Amino acid sequence: MPSSIRITGARITPVAFRDPPLLNTVGIHQPYALRAIVQLDTDAGLVGLGETYADSRHLARLQAAAEAITGLDVFALNAIRAAITQRLRGEDAAVGTAGMITSASAVDQVLSPFEVACLDVQGHACGRPVSDLLGGKVRDAVPFSAYLFYKWAAHSGAEPDQYGEALDPDGIVAQARRIIDEYGFTAIKLKGGVFAPEDEMAAIEALRFAFPQHPLRLDPNAAWTPQTSMKVASRLAGVLEYLEDPTPGLDGMAEVAMQAPMPLATNMCVVAFSQLAPAVAKQSVRVVLSDHHYWGGLQRSRLLAGICENFGLALSMHSNSHLGISLAAMVHLAGATPNLTYACDTHWPWKTEDVVRPGALAFVDGSVPVPETPGLGVQLDEDALAALHEQYVRCGIRDRDDTGYMRSIDPSFEALSPRW
Amino acid sequence: MPSSIRITGARITPVAFRDPPLLNTVGIHQPYALRAIVQLDTDAGLVGLGETYADSRHLARLQAAAEAITGLDVFALNAIRAAITQRLRGEDAAVGTAGMITSASAVDQVLSPFEVACLDVQGHACGRPVSDLLGGKVRDAVPFSAYLFYKWAAHSGAEPDQYGEALDPDGIVAQARRIIDEYGFTAIKLKGGVFAPEDEMAAIEALRFAFPQHPLRLDPNAAWTPQTSMKVASRLAGVLEYLEDPTPGLDGMAEVAMQAPMPLATNMCVVAFSQLAPAVAKQSVRVVLSDHHYWGGLQRSRLLAGICENFGLALSMHSNSHLGISLAAMVHLAGATPNLTYACDTHWPWKTEDVVRPGALAFVDGSVPVPETPGLGVQLDEDALAALHEQYVRCGIRDRDDTGYMRSIDPSFEALSPRW
Ligand SMILES: [Mg+2]
Ligand SMILES: [Mg+2]
Repeated sequence: MPSSIRITGARITPVAFRDPPLLNTVGIHQPYALRAIVQLDTDAGLVGLGETYADSRHLARLQAAAEAITGLDVFALNAIRAAITQRLRGEDAAVGTAGMITSASAVDQVLSPFEVACLDVQGHACGRPVSDLLGGKVRDAVPFSAYLFYKWAAHSGAEPDQYGEALDPDGIVAQARRIIDEYGFTAIKLKGGVFAPEDEMAAIEALRFAFPQHPLRLDPNAAWTPQTSMKVASRLAGVLEYLEDPTPGLDGMAEVAMQAPMPLATNMCVVAFSQLAPAVAKQSVRVVLSDHHYWGGLQRSRLLAGICENFGLALSMHSNSHLGISLAAMVHLAGATPNLTYACDTHWPWKTEDVVRPGALAFVDGSVPVPETPGLGVQLDEDALAALHEQYVRCGIRDRDDTGYMRSIDPSFEALSPRW
Repeated sequence: MPSSIRITGARITPVAFRDPPLLNTVGIHQPYALRAIVQLDTDAGLVGLGETYADSRHLARLQAAAEAITGLDVFALNAIRAAITQRLRGEDAAVGTAGMITSASAVDQVLSPFEVACLDVQGHACGRPVSDLLGGKVRDAVPFSAYLFYKWAAHSGAEPDQYGEALDPDGIVAQARRIIDEYGFTAIKLKGGVFAPEDEMAAIEALRFAFPQHPLRLDPNAAWTPQTSMKVASRLAGVLEYLEDPTPGLDGMAEVAMQAPMPLATNMCVVAFSQLAPAVAKQSVRVVLSDHHYWGGLQRSRLLAGICENFGLALSMHSNSHLGISLAAMVHLAGATPNLTYACDTHWPWKTEDVVRPGALAFVDGSVPVPETPGLGVQLDEDALAALHEQYVRCGIRDRDDTGYMRSIDPSFEALSPRW
C-alpha cells in the first residue's frame, strides 16, 4: 500500500430516481427524488464512492468542498473536516437539503459523502470492508424496519405504481403485508402527521392487530401540539416501541417525554452535535435516530453512538430516500455500532432504480448482511449513473419541495407544525 | 495485506525502572516504577506493542484478557472489547493500578494496551502511522508541560539522583529551570498536596516570577477541602491556567468550580465514561485530563475528546510514570485530537531507562514530533526489556504503594484526603 493516497478531485453527479407519491406532514414526495453521487479520485488510482442530497445549494457546497480537500490524504479525516469547515465559514446551516431536517450542520452534511468515500478508498487500500475501519462488525446482518407511508395510488397524471393507494388503516395494513412478505422486516414504522391523530392511531391499532409481534413506531414529524402528543402517547401505551417526533422543539418534546409511557425518538430536534447537550439537559428524548448523511459521516456517527451510550440515550437510524451507496454505508455503520439495537429505517422498498451494480446488498429476513469485500463493497454502474443523471437533467427538479408539489395539486394545502 | 490478521497470543512482561523519590499527597514514589509491556502476536507475523500498569491484580487481568482475545482479528476492536468485558464480568473496578485513580473502569484499563497494540499492527499492515488511524495528525508535534515535583534528594539509603532536593519555592524554581533548559517545555505543572497550601502557593508565585510567560498548573490531588480550595483559587486568580483536582469528588469540585476564577481540571473525579454525564450535570470541571491507559485506548480516548468537545469541556492529558511505548501512543493520540489544546503531562524527564530503541521520540522545544513511520513508530529493545524485567523480578515491588513506602520511612504518615 502506498504511504500516501492523495485526493486528486471529486466527480459530483446529481441524479434523479423515480419516487412514489408518499405523503407526509409537509406535503408529498415529488415524482423524482434527488441524490448526488460522489466519485472521489486519488493519485493511487483508487476511486471512493459517496452519496448525499442533491439540492442546488448543497451541490454548490459539495463542489466547493471538493476543491478544498483536493491534495489531502484519504486518511487525513481531521484535516478534511477542517478544510471543509474553513471553506463553508460564514455560510448558514443546512437549508432544504434533507426534507424536514433544517437545523443540521452544513459542514457535517457536506463532509459526509467525502468521508464515506475516503473510508471506501481506505478499505480498498487495506483490503478491508469499511466496517473493519469502524471497529469491526458486531452483527453479521443489520435489521431494518418496514417503513410505511400513507400514499396516493399515482402521481398526478401518471399510472398507478405497484403499491397503490394507502389512505386508511386497511390500506396501511395491506401495504405492510406486502412489504413484509417481500423483505421480511421484523419491525414497522408508520410515517404519520398526514391525517388526524385519531385516524393514525387507528392505523397503528390495525397494525398491532395484524402484526402482533412486530415492534411499531409512529412518526408524525412534529405535527402535534404537546397536548395532542400526550393524548396519543397515552392511548398507544404498550403498543408503540417508540413515538418519533410527535411535537416540535426540545422543550415541547421534553414536556411530552415527562408523561409519555413510551420512549420519544427524534430525527428533528437533535440533528447536530450542538443539540446533544441541551437535549440531555432537558431530557427531551430517549432515542436518537442517527443518520450519517447529516452527522458528518461514519466516524462522527460513531461519536454520536458513543455519546448516546454514555448519556442515557438509545440509538436508532433515520433514512431519507436513498440509493445503494448510502445503504452500504448505513449497513457498515450499523453493523459496527454495538448500541444501535433498534431496526434501522430505510426507504429502500420505495425505489425502483439505482446506481450500484446489483448483488452486493440484499434483504434476508428483513436484514442486510454486512458486505465483506473491501471498502463499501458496492460498485458503481456507470451506465445507470449516466441514465439517472440524464433523468435529473430532464426532470427539472433542483430542490426537494414536498410542500410546493402538494400545493400544485391542492392550492389550499399549508405545511403547519403543529397541525393538530 | 492479508484479509485477516488474527491474534495468536500476547506476551506480557512486567518491568521495573528506576524512579526518583517524588512526593505527592499519598506518599512518595518507590525506588522503582512498574509497567507491563504487551507484545501482541499475530498470524501475519506482525507484533504490536502496548504498555500499561503492572500491579499484580492488573497483570492477572491482562493475562486473562490475552486469552480471551486470542483468535480475534486486530481490526475487530468492538469484539475485542466485548471479549474482555465478558472475561472480567463480576470483577470490581480497577484497584490500585494507577496510583490515585481508583474509580476507573477495569475493562477500559485492561483493554487499553491491547487496543494500542492492535493499532500498531494495523498501522504496520497498512503502512500508516497510528495517527492516520485516528483521523490523521492535526499538529506536527505535541507540546508537553514541565511536570515538577517536590522531592527528596535521594531514596532512603541511596545516592542523590541528578535532580537533587526540591522542598521549597527555590528548589522548585531550580528544578523547573533545569527541566525547561533541557526539554524546552512551554507550560509548567506542579504536583502539590505535599506541603501546606500557603507553601505551595508561594512556589507557584515563585514560578510565575521566574517564568512570566509559562502557563502554570497546580495539582494537589484532592488534598484540600472545598473551603481551602476556594481560598487558593482566589489567591491564584490570573496566575493559574487551571487548578487540577483541588478537592475530592464531583460535588466538592462543583462547589469550588462555582467560585473559582480559573477552570478546574481533573484526572480523579472523571476517570471513566460513566462519570461524564454526572460531571456535566453538576458542572464539576471545565477540563478533563484524558489518559488512554484508563480510557480504553486511543479510539475510546477520541470518543472522550468528542464528548468533551460537545459538552463544553476542554481537554488536557494526564500521565503516570511511563516508558516509550506509552509516549508514542500519547503523541499519536494527541497529535490527531484537534481539541487537545493544552500541553500534555508526562513524567518522561524523571526516568533514566526504557524498553524502546532510542531515536524515535525526541523533545524539541518542549514538543515531541509525531512519528511518521508505520504503527506507533517505536521498536522494542529486547535486551532492555529483559534487563528491566530482571529488575522487576529483583526489586520485589509487585504493587505501587506510595503510602506504604512513605510510612516505612515516617511511620506517622497518613494519607488524608482532604488533608488541609
Ligand atoms: Mg423521523
Ligand atoms: Mg492530576
